[in-house]
Amino acid sequence: VTRERLARLLAEVSAGTLSPADALEQLRAFPTDKLEFAQLDHHRLLRQGHPEVVYAAGKTIDQLVEICRRLGLTGDGFLVTRATPEQAQAVCWKVSDIEWNKAARTLLQRPAIRSQVDGRALLVAAGTSDLPAMEEAAVTLSALGIESERLVDVGVAGLHRLLAAHDQLQAADVIIVAAGMEGALPSVVGGLVGVPVIALPTSVGYGASFDGLAALLAMLNSCAAGITVVNIDNGFGAAMAAARILLRRSES
Amino acid sequence: VTRERLARLLAEVSAGTLSPADALEQLRAFPTDKLEFAQLDHHRLLRQGHPEVVYAAGKTIDQLVEICRRLGLTGDGFLVTRATPEQAQAVCWKVSDIEWNKAARTLLQRPAIRSQVDGRALLVAAGTSDLPAMEEAAVTLSALGIESERLVDVGVAGLHRLLAAHDQLQAADVIIVAAGMEGALPSVVGGLVGVPVIALPTSVGYGASFDGLAALLAMLNSCAAGITVVNIDNGFGAAMAAARILLRRSES
Amino acid sequence: VTRERLARLLAEVSAGTLSPADALEQLRAFPTDKLEFAQLDHHRLLRQGHPEVVYAAGKTIDQLVEICRRLGLTGDGFLVTRATPEQAQAVCWKVSDIEWNKAARTLLQRPAIRSQVDGRALLVAAGTSDLPAMEEAAVTLSALGIESERLVDVGVAGLHRLLAAHDQLQAADVIIVAAGMEGALPSVVGGLVGVPVIALPTSVGYGASFDGLAALLAMLNSCAAGITVVNIDNGFGAAMAAARILLRRSES
Amino acid sequence: VTRERLARLLAEVSAGTLSPADALEQLRAFPTDKLEFAQLDHHRLLRQGHPEVVYAAGKTIDQLVEICRRLGLTGDGFLVTRATPEQAQAVCWKVSDIEWNKAARTLLQRPAIRSQVDGRALLVAAGTSDLPAMEEAAVTLSALGIESERLVDVGVAGLHRLLAAHDQLQAADVIIVAAGMEGALPSVVGGLVGVPVIALPTSVGYGASFDGLAALLAMLNSCAAGITVVNIDNGFGAAMAAARILLRRSES
Amino acid sequence: VTRERLARLLAEVSAGTLSPADALEQLRAFPTDKLEFAQLDHHRLLRQGHPEVVYAAGKTIDQLVEICRRLGLTGDGFLVTRATPEQAQAVCWKVSDIEWNKAARTLLQRPAIRSQVDGRALLVAAGTSDLPAMEEAAVTLSALGIESERLVDVGVAGLHRLLAAHDQLQAADVIIVAAGMEGALPSVVGGLVGVPVIALPTSVGYGASFDGLAALLAMLNSCAAGITVVNIDNGFGAAMAAARILLRRSES
Amino acid sequence: VTRERLARLLAEVSAGTLSPADALEQLRAFPTDKLEFAQLDHHRLLRQGHPEVVYAAGKTIDQLVEICRRLGLTGDGFLVTRATPEQAQAVCWKVSDIEWNKAARTLLQRPAIRSQVDGRALLVAAGTSDLPAMEEAAVTLSALGIESERLVDVGVAGLHRLLAAHDQLQAADVIIVAAGMEGALPSVVGGLVGVPVIALPTSVGYGASFDGLAALLAMLNSCAAGITVVNIDNGFGAAMAAARILLRRSES
Amino acid sequence: VTRERLARLLAEVSAGTLSPADALEQLRAFPTDKLEFAQLDHHRLLRQGHPEVVYAAGKTIDQLVEICRRLGLTGDGFLVTRATPEQAQAVCWKVSDIEWNKAARTLLQRPAIRSQVDGRALLVAAGTSDLPAMEEAAVTLSALGIESERLVDVGVAGLHRLLAAHDQLQAADVIIVAAGMEGALPSVVGGLVGVPVIALPTSVGYGASFDGLAALLAMLNSCAAGITVVNIDNGFGAAMAAARILLRRSES
Amino acid sequence: VTRERLARLLAEVSAGTLSPADALEQLRAFPTDKLEFAQLDHHRLLRQGHPEVVYAAGKTIDQLVEICRRLGLTGDGFLVTRATPEQAQAVCWKVSDIEWNKAARTLLQRPAIRSQVDGRALLVAAGTSDLPAMEEAAVTLSALGIESERLVDVGVAGLHRLLAAHDQLQAADVIIVAAGMEGALPSVVGGLVGVPVIALPTSVGYGASFDGLAALLAMLNSCAAGITVVNIDNGFGAAMAAARILLRRSES
Repeated sequence: VTRERLARLLAEVSAGTLSPADALEQLRAFPTDKLEFAQLDHHRLLRQGHPEVVYAAGKTIDQLVEICRRLGLTGDGFLVTRATPEQAQAVCWKVSDIEWNKAARTLLQRPAIRSQVDGRALLVAAGTSDLPAMEEAAVTLSALGIESERLVDVGVAGLHRLLAAHDQLQAADVIIVAAGMEGALPSVVGGLVGVPVIALPTSVGYGASFDGLAALLAMLNSCAAGITVVNIDNGFGAAMAAARILLRRSES
Repeated sequence: VTRERLARLLAEVSAGTLSPADALEQLRAFPTDKLEFAQLDHHRLLRQGHPEVVYAAGKTIDQLVEICRRLGLTGDGFLVTRATPEQAQAVCWKVSDIEWNKAARTLLQRPAIRSQVDGRALLVAAGTSDLPAMEEAAVTLSALGIESERLVDVGVAGLHRLLAAHDQLQAADVIIVAAGMEGALPSVVGGLVGVPVIALPTSVGYGASFDGLAALLAMLNSCAAGITVVNIDNGFGAAMAAARILLRRSES
Repeated sequence: VTRERLARLLAEVSAGTLSPADALEQLRAFPTDKLEFAQLDHHRLLRQGHPEVVYAAGKTIDQLVEICRRLGLTGDGFLVTRATPEQAQAVCWKVSDIEWNKAARTLLQRPAIRSQVDGRALLVAAGTSDLPAMEEAAVTLSALGIESERLVDVGVAGLHRLLAAHDQLQAADVIIVAAGMEGALPSVVGGLVGVPVIALPTSVGYGASFDGLAALLAMLNSCAAGITVVNIDNGFGAAMAAARILLRRSES
Repeated sequence: VTRERLARLLAEVSAGTLSPADALEQLRAFPTDKLEFAQLDHHRLLRQGHPEVVYAAGKTIDQLVEICRRLGLTGDGFLVTRATPEQAQAVCWKVSDIEWNKAARTLLQRPAIRSQVDGRALLVAAGTSDLPAMEEAAVTLSALGIESERLVDVGVAGLHRLLAAHDQLQAADVIIVAAGMEGALPSVVGGLVGVPVIALPTSVGYGASFDGLAALLAMLNSCAAGITVVNIDNGFGAAMAAARILLRRSES
Repeated sequence: VTRERLARLLAEVSAGTLSPADALEQLRAFPTDKLEFAQLDHHRLLRQGHPEVVYAAGKTIDQLVEICRRLGLTGDGFLVTRATPEQAQAVCWKVSDIEWNKAARTLLQRPAIRSQVDGRALLVAAGTSDLPAMEEAAVTLSALGIESERLVDVGVAGLHRLLAAHDQLQAADVIIVAAGMEGALPSVVGGLVGVPVIALPTSVGYGASFDGLAALLAMLNSCAAGITVVNIDNGFGAAMAAARILLRRSES
Repeated sequence: VTRERLARLLAEVSAGTLSPADALEQLRAFPTDKLEFAQLDHHRLLRQGHPEVVYAAGKTIDQLVEICRRLGLTGDGFLVTRATPEQAQAVCWKVSDIEWNKAARTLLQRPAIRSQVDGRALLVAAGTSDLPAMEEAAVTLSALGIESERLVDVGVAGLHRLLAAHDQLQAADVIIVAAGMEGALPSVVGGLVGVPVIALPTSVGYGASFDGLAALLAMLNSCAAGITVVNIDNGFGAAMAAARILLRRSES
Repeated sequence: VTRERLARLLAEVSAGTLSPADALEQLRAFPTDKLEFAQLDHHRLLRQGHPEVVYAAGKTIDQLVEICRRLGLTGDGFLVTRATPEQAQAVCWKVSDIEWNKAARTLLQRPAIRSQVDGRALLVAAGTSDLPAMEEAAVTLSALGIESERLVDVGVAGLHRLLAAHDQLQAADVIIVAAGMEGALPSVVGGLVGVPVIALPTSVGYGASFDGLAALLAMLNSCAAGITVVNIDNGFGAAMAAARILLRRSES
Repeated sequence: VTRERLARLLAEVSAGTLSPADALEQLRAFPTDKLEFAQLDHHRLLRQGHPEVVYAAGKTIDQLVEICRRLGLTGDGFLVTRATPEQAQAVCWKVSDIEWNKAARTLLQRPAIRSQVDGRALLVAAGTSDLPAMEEAAVTLSALGIESERLVDVGVAGLHRLLAAHDQLQAADVIIVAAGMEGALPSVVGGLVGVPVIALPTSVGYGASFDGLAALLAMLNSCAAGITVVNIDNGFGAAMAAARILLRRSES
């Protein structure tokens, strides 16, 4: 677009319908526009009809409501992550068409026009306590038009349940594996299949788990080659990484 | 295969050519075979003609030479990572057709039959000191039949060089970004393009870098959504993650 | 069992009462069953009449109540660890025959048929503040049919009380030693007797105790040879380790 | 001054208007006065009419109110940092002319005579969640008679907004850059302009952010030469460092 | 013995062949003897013919040689751990009948009379690089008269090899599992069998392995209940813990 | 005492008024008594009429009240540290003659007979926020019959106030220096005077103070030779260390 | 400049001497140029005749020599930091006019045309062991045309030497304070004078100094308001921060 | 003294034998002198004939030799700590009458006039590997005229040896307890006797010892009240702390 806008502007100057001085004024805003173009790539990721994302932590209720109300006007939808119940209730009260997922701590206003992305995302969780991070990932993928399957309670202390799901693992285009405690599950999954695996450490555990640090370190040191890792409890980030992979596939 | 083998075995029992007792004996070995099958998937990742990978650290020179000599007999090639100069020289002396990349600390015997994987991998490094990790990634990709482009010395303190390469970034199917010190480069790259970005922290730095910890933490906390991270200096792992993405693309 | 089931299946095929095709269908489920068999070993640990274990932290009250209700139907009993008072009250309200141990934060429904394991387990605690972890261990052992003795308030700053209990220490088949702060007690106990000693660091302390890290590190670095360590405040894990030792003794 | 006072004292002794004994008495107090003089330098920093600063954390409400009431009597104004709402309400109730900034957690009583310092201070924040630290800096600067501009929501994942503000960055005499998460913004700002840059890490983030440690380490390891760093969330300290620079400029 | 000695002493006093004063003198030494008695328990662990253990690290060559020479005179044998090649060569030169295990860094002089302990110890190592720690454990067990089997290169990224060894795992009376990197192997082994499992973290790895910290934390947080852990690379300690279990079994 | 008791026992045996068998029975209890004797030394520290000490953290209200009630019956007094307001109120309600110091979080019942220890203890605090730790030290000293002077708000950023108190510092027999944040005050005090200095780090601070870790590390690394350190916020321990010094002086 | 270049370009289009298509082509390169311009600001910091800076750590000798040879051709001079003796000797051998400062680990080729910056920089070091970091700062300042004074061995354990230098401290326009161990010196200096103070932690110390971490944390938590901090041993960064302050002063 | 000097000066001014201007000049040096006076206290610690102390780490051989040569001229003796063999040999070569203690890494030139301090210092070490730190303490005490006894190899895993030395512990006026690994020994010693106990953590250990951190934390968290701690391997500091206690005793 910008290239066209530039061409049009120059054509106007050439045609004399725009003075050089006025063109100069318009070009002052250029660097931004230019990079807005760069950003369009990011927009492509969050394509038409896909939600803007807001990180709720550290924002006052007033700030969050105001941001959501404005975003709600665009019709493009938006996703709020890490919303406290207080924040969520306030937004639900003031903005319409909000889906509040308590477990995931997300608020979602779906866009008017929904796109659909091909590719199978599989969400695997070691235990029930890892579900909040997994839910955040599921909501995020859903907001991006990516549907996902789930496989829960397949921790490494009971391998047979995981092994029984081998075909499901193998069929996925990308797998997000959430685990707390010793964080061994992504290594095992990554050893079983050659699919892209995104390891999602959770803060499940106590004592020497150090709020998820043990799981994070384990995943970073995985002996299963080619596992990548996101921040502790960062279901949103894991989903966005999966989306980058699936969206790029769709483009090419 | 296993399904067929099972069917055959049962047919033999049904036909009376195999006693139930003997069949039982054969089935005892079943779980392993079943998983060998599962492992075949991993073999698919490192497809025919692709090298086996050996982690040299902590192995004696004798152990490493012996492993390499045996692998060398298969003709499938192999890749050794983290080889010290002493280990490298011993292997080069005893095993033929070894490519020793000093910077990458790798030893590579290319397979007889070489495959080629589609998809563009781009390797970005913040500075010259980050090259060893990047080299390890490049050699690993090359061993898997994936050619890669490079973009070096584009650290965040001099953004214009990075911005000038926007098209190159945009055209890649997967980007590995190596950076030490404050580890900010993957965030900036991830903000510019929607392509899968694998952040590779390096141990470049001193003092409060804590041998790459600062860069690792920065990358895990990236505000550019969807960046994933591998272990410090783990160029091999970053390349394998990129390969998982590109190979999966090729399959589907 | 599985071996018998397999034998029966093959006999049926041999006898012609089961077609190879149907047998194949049944065998599809095999890997799981096979590993269920492997798991039976774990079930042996938690033998007939012994409780299933549920980790309550991170579960919603609804999730926990539902899990407990289902487990309550089996008559095999179950053990819940790390239950908050809110979770505990909800479960006690909805499920019958629950023993709630506030100090241990456990909920226990004893199995209908109770087994008894031979061997003497001794629980030693440095101070009164270490009792919650010790209680969790005691309840867990009790749930497994293992009775245990206790020795409390024998911290290293007042050695004579510990030394006076030398015979009791010597007579035990396994000793769990809980201590916070500097965590020195397991070293002293391990120096006094040759019995298996499981060190249980607790989060008792403040400042440079770092929530039990100081005690954990001390125990890992014990100069008394052959001390093993579990996670901070992990009374459940210490008890399970003791049970592994006592159960294996009983078997052989 | 002290030099003159000393000279005067010695002159009086020489003139016989002061006995050596009395002079000795006066000189007993000397070390303190000497250093009071040294402290006057500090007073120069907080020049006439500028507020004394009180750190509220860890003080009881009674202690804080009493301190503020006494300071309120001087007419020189005072600044309270890290005030809880309870502390703030108590002080506002008991002491007059207090400006309570909730976001900044500050209480300010402006001095009767206000000075004005030349020089442009620019406050940059990566995101809305970094505003509390930035507010604390703004209030502190304001209390010192330094007005500041603001630039918010210019995180590295969306560089164009920052680049668009290049002129504003370039025009500043000192820049405070607040960022949490990966803390990359000061590196980028420091690479764009040669102005003094004070990096202010914030505790915005979760998981491996470790309450701002990730941002702090990133800033300490900045590849943009000459960036300096203050404590996590220390908006007050960043402002005081900016004031040291601007005040020294004004003097020379 | 001490009880008898005491009885004898009192009898002598009663018989008048020992004056109360002389008896008092003899009893002054009592506390030591009493505890020597307590220590006899420890001696029972390292029973007749079993070696004394010397930690070589931090000792000068002269100190170590002198200690070994004296121990060599007893005929009871001794075990030296963590010997550098320089220390080892000096001891081998000066003391006879030394077995130097380079990989394990141990020096062993076997006792004249060798005992034999019942019970099967199984040593499992994730990879070749974990062998030094495993060797130290093997030598220690051997020195105590306990023979051990080995299972190597069964890391979690290739589960089928481990699963194939299920019977071997099941048959052991105690299992030591050595693993570096993400340290997941003990969790998987502990989930497969109910045997006592001692997790032995190794310093194999780099970057965020932090010299074995990642593996250590993973093992402490194992979701497989009842796993216990020893210090990083502490093969000696793992073996001593196994010995405590096996020796106690033999006694009862 | 024990020596006399032993002599008496042996005399009785010698005299025939005690049979060797009965004497043996009495001697069985010997090790404990012997160490009770050793403990008497500790009792000497907390001499006649001095309080027993109870650590309240981690104890239930019922436990604490029961302990205090029993101790209250002895008339020897007792000291409770780290009491929460809830614990304190319950104890004050149920046990008589309790002095509750809210700031110090202590409960003190003074002994009937009070002793007095010579020697001057000086308590120095960097700021008002360090007072709770200092108060705990003051109450502990007072409970031991040691009166103490105080010097507050003499932090290193305003040295003259400290320097003005040089004589007071010099006159002390032991100095406890409490400081949070950068913890520099003990170094400065230790450089000014040669008196024993006990550094007491406090958790005052935020961000990179890491709850007192920064102050603790600073004090451990003091360039003023001969400073010793206690745990963070451990006013009780600092006071006990001071008491060890003063009591030993009084004895010799 | 860019504004003028844009105006000129638009004038040409308006005048018909440049076609809109060609203008579009020229504008494509715009973002880079724009930022090259931005970089010019950085160039202003390292103004004409001032050296380019090269970080030698992690570079091979060949890489470093090649970089230096090229930079040597420009006549603008260059500064190499963190050069090993091997690197330094190789560069001195191959490139002319190099000043090698062993203590500072720097290589400096001074520019042909030397500029001079006004303003007094004072370098303060706590002890002799802190000199390497201080030397690096001094060489860096010198390379930028800034001369600096020094004040050494004025650690906080001997305050009088520091206090005696009060006038020198007061007269400086910026002070860099290097200290290891407990890192208290910047707090004291910052309390004495209102001048900008840059704290430079060094790795001097052992044990709980953790290679400078203790000093770093102390400086970040300084109670002297407005102290800023750079990385451990980062004399270069401290000098560059001082240069930013002095250069900005000179401009305005 | 200073008071007298001041009085004399004022008397001279009063008498006219000193002009006010000259007096002013003399008083310019006053603050230093005043603090030199303060420092005299420190000198009292290292009284006449006692050595100056030099920290050798981080000093070049040339610097160290020069410092020692100058100190050698005073005849007051000096102590060098942390000297490498290279440094030691150079100093021994160039300066006369040096006692080099290799284990302690100290160089000592005894003062011409030797003083003697009363009081018994006892040095306790857990094992042979802790001797270097203990030797450094012993040399330091010796340099200060304080003789010390030793008690070695009394680690907590063999308590009877320690208990046998109860009288020796009880008789000491101050005890330094060196221990690595789990660092439990000071707690046990502190529980046995009421004497001042200085805990000296050593870096003996491996893995989770983290170079002495485990021992340091254990000692800081000691449940034996009144134990104080110095830096890891800081035998010098422990000795200086003991000296402060003994010297203060002698004075009063």
